[in-house]
Amino acid sequence: MTDAYTALEQRFARLTALAGSLAVLQWDTRTMMPAGAADGRAEQIAAMDVTRHELLTSLDVGEWLAEAQADTAALSSWQRANLREMAWTYDHAMAVPADLVEAHSRACTRCETAWGPARATGDFKALQPLLQDVLHREREVAAAKAARLGCNPYDALLDGYEPGLRASLIDPLFAELETFLPSFLAQVMDEQAARRSGSVPGGPFPVERQRAVAERLIGTLGFDFSRGRLDESLHPFCAGTAFDTRLTTRYDEANVAPALMAVLHETGHGLYEQGLPSDWAHQPVGASRGMVVHESQSLLIEMQACRSRPFIGHLARVLDDGFGDADVAWDADALYDAYTRVEPGFIRVDADEVTYPAHILLRWRLEQALLSDDLVLADLPVAWNDGMRDLLGIVPPDDRLGCLQDIHWPSGAWGYFPTYTLGAIMAAQLFATVCRDVPEVPDHLARGDFGPLLAWLRRHIHGQASRLLTRELLIEATGRPLQLQPYLDHLHGRYLGWSA
Amino acid sequence: MTDAYTALEQRFARLTALAGSLAVLQWDTRTMMPAGAADGRAEQIAAMDVTRHELLTSLDVGEWLAEAQADTAALSSWQRANLREMAWTYDHAMAVPADLVEAHSRACTRCETAWGPARATGDFKALQPLLQDVLHREREVAAAKAARLGCNPYDALLDGYEPGLRASLIDPLFAELETFLPSFLAQVMDEQAARRSGSVPGGPFPVERQRAVAERLIGTLGFDFSRGRLDESLHPFCAGTAFDTRLTTRYDEANVAPALMAVLHETGHGLYEQGLPSDWAHQPVGASRGMVVHESQSLLIEMQACRSRPFIGHLARVLDDGFGDADVAWDADALYDAYTRVEPGFIRVDADEVTYPAHILLRWRLEQALLSDDLVLADLPVAWNDGMRDLLGIVPPDDRLGCLQDIHWPSGAWGYFPTYTLGAIMAAQLFATVCRDVPEVPDHLARGDFGPLLAWLRRHIHGQASRLLTRELLIEATGRPLQLQPYLDHLHGRYLGWSA
Repeated sequence: MTDAYTALEQRFARLTALAGSLAVLQWDTRTMMPAGAADGRAEQIAAMDVTRHELLTSLDVGEWLAEAQADTAALSSWQRANLREMAWTYDHAMAVPADLVEAHSRACTRCETAWGPARATGDFKALQPLLQDVLHREREVAAAKAARLGCNPYDALLDGYEPGLRASLIDPLFAELETFLPSFLAQVMDEQAARRSGSVPGGPFPVERQRAVAERLIGTLGFDFSRGRLDESLHPFCAGTAFDTRLTTRYDEANVAPALMAVLHETGHGLYEQGLPSDWAHQPVGASRGMVVHESQSLLIEMQACRSRPFIGHLARVLDDGFGDADVAWDADALYDAYTRVEPGFIRVDADEVTYPAHILLRWRLEQALLSDDLVLADLPVAWNDGMRDLLGIVPPDDRLGCLQDIHWPSGAWGYFPTYTLGAIMAAQLFATVCRDVPEVPDHLARGDFGPLLAWLRRHIHGQASRLLTRELLIEATGRPLQLQPYLDHLHGRYLGWSA
Repeated sequence: MTDAYTALEQRFARLTALAGSLAVLQWDTRTMMPAGAADGRAEQIAAMDVTRHELLTSLDVGEWLAEAQADTAALSSWQRANLREMAWTYDHAMAVPADLVEAHSRACTRCETAWGPARATGDFKALQPLLQDVLHREREVAAAKAARLGCNPYDALLDGYEPGLRASLIDPLFAELETFLPSFLAQVMDEQAARRSGSVPGGPFPVERQRAVAERLIGTLGFDFSRGRLDESLHPFCAGTAFDTRLTTRYDEANVAPALMAVLHETGHGLYEQGLPSDWAHQPVGASRGMVVHESQSLLIEMQACRSRPFIGHLARVLDDGFGDADVAWDADALYDAYTRVEPGFIRVDADEVTYPAHILLRWRLEQALLSDDLVLADLPVAWNDGMRDLLGIVPPDDRLGCLQDIHWPSGAWGYFPTYTLGAIMAAQLFATVCRDVPEVPDHLARGDFGPLLAWLRRHIHGQASRLLTRELLIEATGRPLQLQPYLDHLHGRYLGWSA
């Protein structure tokens, strides 16, 4: 091991620790912070961003990288991968000048904080100048990164969320989906209309009892509460580190499904974080691979495992314990029908599995148009509503249910949305492989036992962290790069009763 | 204004923002963090400490300071004071090498985290090695600072909490108190024994209702919840910034007094923070003056105002609203007797005003002995219990009620304890001045109106931030430097019925 490599490990350990601190600040911003602290918090986060940027782009880091890359013979495969991840981080950071890092950070924190009240009142005009500032900075960042990475600006943003991801991978998959979805959705709606479903108990479901049920389920899935928490926020998320993984959800007393399904989704993210190899916890190679892989883990847990018929049988018993009374039982078949019900709706995070990709296609189109200035921000509400009409045949009555619903753009996450649907596609491919490799998984899920599934994920995905690039990771785990077919098979199987 | 001064303001704005982030991390460590995250959090805090230290001690800061100090003609009085505070911060930082900063930070975070479980079980042996490490680092820090500041090591630690504070100021005051207290305490106990008091309603007091009463009272005092929070922690504290001030307390369902009085105390700290001048929020001169002044604000609110007979009349009505039922009334005289009851006890934070200084004298003796190696850490439990016997005539049955009760030493706050009693002395001097300058203050307190008191504090203390040194601040506010007499007058007046 060279001195240069050792120096890099020390520097990146500090950067990882500062990133962990920043994750706590961001969690706090969304869950605990009093409203009047927003401006001051923006300064705090900007100071962290600028400081991390300086530590990453200092002259010595570039010299150490060159020296370490020139002599990798003594490094282990994990160390070589670590070096590759360091270089990737360095390239992204070097691309953006420090004053732009600071301006971008400040714009995002301010806009994200204003988003909560603007969303609550559906007031797009109130958010527009702050969002315009974010978009302006985002364009500058994309252009700067594109110049250094030698790709186009949108690819440069995608690469920041999933190293190596390019529009050229997304475009054919999403084009095929755009063709597939309308007719498939129509078939599913017809099939549903022809079927008579039982009913599940109605509310109210007190928040305290929902929380207790959620915590019990999370524990069943294997989430370790000695290294994590569950809280509330406007928009469910998972944040933190392997040793301090924080999930949030939001409760609706009239309906238990939204909180519960959000929790199961975020737990999928949390299990990934908690399963990262502790030996590499303080280095880039020890981090999760990227947001496509991350989303594959949340969707594998939520969509593939927890909405499967075997697990729903177990879930009905859990809900019966948590909310049941002597008169009203939770019937597993009725619950399965309810939790796999397809219905076009306005809110992405509440969307079913079939209509969800349409929400992503909309955002994917719009964010590219906004970034390239083919769409001006003032026209976003109209463009959003037009897109919803095209894709799902419904029009949001206000911007609260339309273009204000997501925190992503206000918080500076542009080029992020495609990772959700790419993650769904990857989840299907992974779950099909698990069920082939470990055929008893569905039986275990029927008993609420996630052990065999989690063991497979720990070995093939979580424990690999960033040792491999996404394509290689997927090939090692499933034998093939990303395929659309298992996802289409899964949708056919679940919603039209075809077996693959 | 010179370029050097402007460059300093920019650097210190970043340092202030990073210190604010650190305050959120520390609050989180004590209120929210899952237990398993302790080691990782220690790394995060150490990374923040090291990074701030580097930004503060870089070559350019020393050069800017020299240049700005050479030409202060164009600076306002606030800017000149800001420069003085910057130099003070720089001197403290330059004294300690970076690797010691890191080792000290890590030792403190680890020990502080282990303190919770050790205290719960009264297991001093479990904490001892971690506390030994903190003490070892603390001695190194004290020696390094003493060398640069040209004072003795204990003075160097005192100076870190209240600039300019020296043992030579404390020693005569504390010596007089050591003489005064035993006979005074005996007199008060006799007087109390001769009196028959009414009784106040017993519990249980549900936590939710205690929290509601606490929030109502805090609001009455003038605490702004749009820029602050109230949470729970093992040890009550106030942390954060002027724009995000976080109070904590702990609840006991059997007794409402501990949570309530802790909340009023912490609110005194919180009002100080929230009253700092917003124009200087991001500069050293805009910070609170020091821990003696801070403690004077908490004790002025808790001891001088909230345990005064006029306010207790109002408090009885608040408690009647919050907990009363038709059969049991809260009688103001009985409440006043209860809330000014003197009784030697084991726990400092639950101690009455008369025995409290004895707790401080004990810690002040012991921490000097430990730092100078006159006392070895293994002997602390015995020395503690011996001291309690000497000073208050009682012996803790276990270390939970003895030397494990406070978070200060485990978290690296050595030389801090004297600020509590110095603060009590200052609080008496300030409150006597307020009541002379604004004679209607007691009548307002009787109606639960803190407006005139808060206005005086905002003008003379809070709004002054660190513009003046403590001695000058006190002279401007009261006409004199720190005096013991108003404190003794207050104790005589309240506990033996003498008027001053």
